[in-house]
Amino acid sequence: MSEAFRLGIAGLGTVGTGVLRLLADNADLLHMRAGRPIEVAAVSARDRSRDRGIDLASYTWCDDPVALADLDGLDAVVEVIGGSEGPALTLAERALGRGRSVVTANKAMIAEHGFALAQTAEAKGAALLFEAAVCAGTPILQTLREGLVGNRIDRIEGILNGTSNYILSAMERQGEDFDAVLSEAQRLGYAEADPTLDVGGGDAAHKLAILAALGFGVRPHFGEVEVEGIQDIRAADIVQAERLGYSVRLVAMADLEREDGVPARLLQRVRPCLLPADHPLAAIDGPTNAVLAQSDYAGPILIQGAGAGSESTASAIVADVVALARGDARPAFGVPTSSLVQTACADSGEREARYYLRFVVADRPGVLAELAAAMRDARVSIQSLIQEGESVGPEEAGITIALVTHKAPARNIRDARERLKGSPSIVEPPLAMPILMD
Amino acid sequence: MSEAFRLGIAGLGTVGTGVLRLLADNADLLHMRAGRPIEVAAVSARDRSRDRGIDLASYTWCDDPVALADLDGLDAVVEVIGGSEGPALTLAERALGRGRSVVTANKAMIAEHGFALAQTAEAKGAALLFEAAVCAGTPILQTLREGLVGNRIDRIEGILNGTSNYILSAMERQGEDFDAVLSEAQRLGYAEADPTLDVGGGDAAHKLAILAALGFGVRPHFGEVEVEGIQDIRAADIVQAERLGYSVRLVAMADLEREDGVPARLLQRVRPCLLPADHPLAAIDGPTNAVLAQSDYAGPILIQGAGAGSESTASAIVADVVALARGDARPAFGVPTSSLVQTACADSGEREARYYLRFVVADRPGVLAELAAAMRDARVSIQSLIQEGESVGPEEAGITIALVTHKAPARNIRDARERLKGSPSIVEPPLAMPILMD
Repeated sequence: MSEAFRLGIAGLGTVGTGVLRLLADNADLLHMRAGRPIEVAAVSARDRSRDRGIDLASYTWCDDPVALADLDGLDAVVEVIGGSEGPALTLAERALGRGRSVVTANKAMIAEHGFALAQTAEAKGAALLFEAAVCAGTPILQTLREGLVGNRIDRIEGILNGTSNYILSAMERQGEDFDAVLSEAQRLGYAEADPTLDVGGGDAAHKLAILAALGFGVRPHFGEVEVEGIQDIRAADIVQAERLGYSVRLVAMADLEREDGVPARLLQRVRPCLLPADHPLAAIDGPTNAVLAQSDYAGPILIQGAGAGSESTASAIVADVVALARGDARPAFGVPTSSLVQTACADSGEREARYYLRFVVADRPGVLAELAAAMRDARVSIQSLIQEGESVGPEEAGITIALVTHKAPARNIRDARERLKGSPSIVEPPLAMPILMD
Repeated sequence: MSEAFRLGIAGLGTVGTGVLRLLADNADLLHMRAGRPIEVAAVSARDRSRDRGIDLASYTWCDDPVALADLDGLDAVVEVIGGSEGPALTLAERALGRGRSVVTANKAMIAEHGFALAQTAEAKGAALLFEAAVCAGTPILQTLREGLVGNRIDRIEGILNGTSNYILSAMERQGEDFDAVLSEAQRLGYAEADPTLDVGGGDAAHKLAILAALGFGVRPHFGEVEVEGIQDIRAADIVQAERLGYSVRLVAMADLEREDGVPARLLQRVRPCLLPADHPLAAIDGPTNAVLAQSDYAGPILIQGAGAGSESTASAIVADVVALARGDARPAFGVPTSSLVQTACADSGEREARYYLRFVVADRPGVLAELAAAMRDARVSIQSLIQEGESVGPEEAGITIALVTHKAPARNIRDARERLKGSPSIVEPPLAMPILMD
């Protein structure tokens, strides 16, 4: 086993160069732990001449990343190009199709095409590993697949998007509104120029679909993740939540309903929630990610760490590479694809919770009565009115009404919001956040 | 790979029967994930006739656990007898000596004899796995060995003893003294009849020595762990700490000093500390365990969960068994024993920290001057006197003086305590707890 394990790396952005640096910095350690040296034999990127601060002369250069699928003498390909389709997918399909193992950080590709890719890998005796796709170097997939291998897991909750968590924690700390904090996050490098995928919940949804498939042993169902982002949350909502004893967090949650012990219905949701102070995710602050898995024998297991960054992502990729170099072959989703259960989508409308509801309404008589009537007609009962009549801002035409409901099914909350749609009293769409109990 | 993986289980206490239950409850899942069925073929325990609520008729019975080392047709032995020597050690030595893999939950045995056992395993091509020995089913060893395999780790901090953490959190919540809370913990099953190993820090020391060896790639040095327990902490100390913004926790800490990148000196300490509210371990409440590893690429990684209990321990044992059934062979401490570095013991006296010091002194004039003089002579400078002259209790002859020092080396603190030893003013030995900074 002393022969070198030879890699091709497709993509030399911050993650790709991070992998090169890690492999160089910790080469001796990796050799010792893997039982053989790990070498980069070939690389591919868009621009060969760009200065990456790394000498690429010793690697075979491929202009076309897909060429790494066919290049002789490679043991595995690391795909860090990104994008759910395009060259990343073509490379993965082609490499696996000829029996070459693939390590990727590509959450969108795995969430959307992971099942088909895993089938190809299995048919050709190759491995498809993607630890870096969820929470970067925080080894959550491995914890689910290996550490908790003896357990049935029926519920996974996580804070899976560092940008959103950074923004919510900063809003909490600084009392500032979303837009102000987003600009600051962009300036500090915690948010992309186009933050839609992060603050809109899409990024967390990709990760959640992967976690649910691997944790529960079901086929990935990315298209069924219900997603709501944090864009409409105001500093005032966070202040209200705090007064009630809660933190606002963008929580990704997957829940498996079984029938006779067999996975039957899958609920997957990404949405801002109110967390009580003693909820393990309430304390997760800043750009940190965390996942809480409810397992039948080991109980609740929480793992937390950085969820992004070139160094952290490189750590996850190298962990997968070392596993391959050691000869560990593992089905992509923990079990053969034929054993992954095809579940139905659970009806989220049935789920009951108390809700925080916040309305921005016109400042005129009778508005509160109109709200109360809509709630009554939707069979949502109000537990307490926590804010009434505070003006939203000097330039805006609305005042704020915030309330907490008694436990109600999600569909009744939706119904109440539906009933108020189009009402001239409603200045902006109401915000609804469930209160998660421990 | 569809042939069954056959186990012998030595020890049928709560953990052994927990393993039998898990293997039965999740048999289908395990078969799917391991790629082959996992079967118990033989068992051994002290009393064959004891009712364990489990039908043992289908297993070969051995009166002598050591017989499982030689019994034909076993693929591995699970050792859950306990005790660092005696039949547990004899069984492990003998099984590994004949090339049979061993899975154990025995922290004392691994901390004290793990290196020699790993050498035997290596020489004979067998595996020695012990995930259950540290934090039960919370998969920390696997996280260090696999998830963070690409990283250099130089610092590990943990809350490794659930009993002590339960007691400290309860003292914090209820404002009661150690003895009262210990009795309650014993009644609720969170503490043993003889709690010495837990509250005295010995149990955490065993776990710390294993974590340090595996995390840092050094030989286990259990004998060099500095240990202080929580027995002398009073409710008043916790109240003072809270007023200063800190939580009191029994922290196990291992720290590696390198020379030219090579492990040189190892510091291992178990002792009660004051943690600031934003330290990730400060929020760990009740019987929960948690480990924080500082890694060079993945950054700080925290994993937390149950640290004891038959079900959680069974989860860890089964994870190791599945790894063996899949054919993963891993050196016991992550690298071959010949690569484990023999480190020197770091001089803990050099480590600087601010300290919380609490004295119980005779109620008479001049005592504070005597304390202050001892501190001055030991070159410990007092930052603030936070309590002075509060009577310890109606029946006791002392009053309490609590203070916080400026940063000082541990040896100066020891010196100050030494100088006061034997003084008629000192009613009980002073308590000293370092303040951990984030």
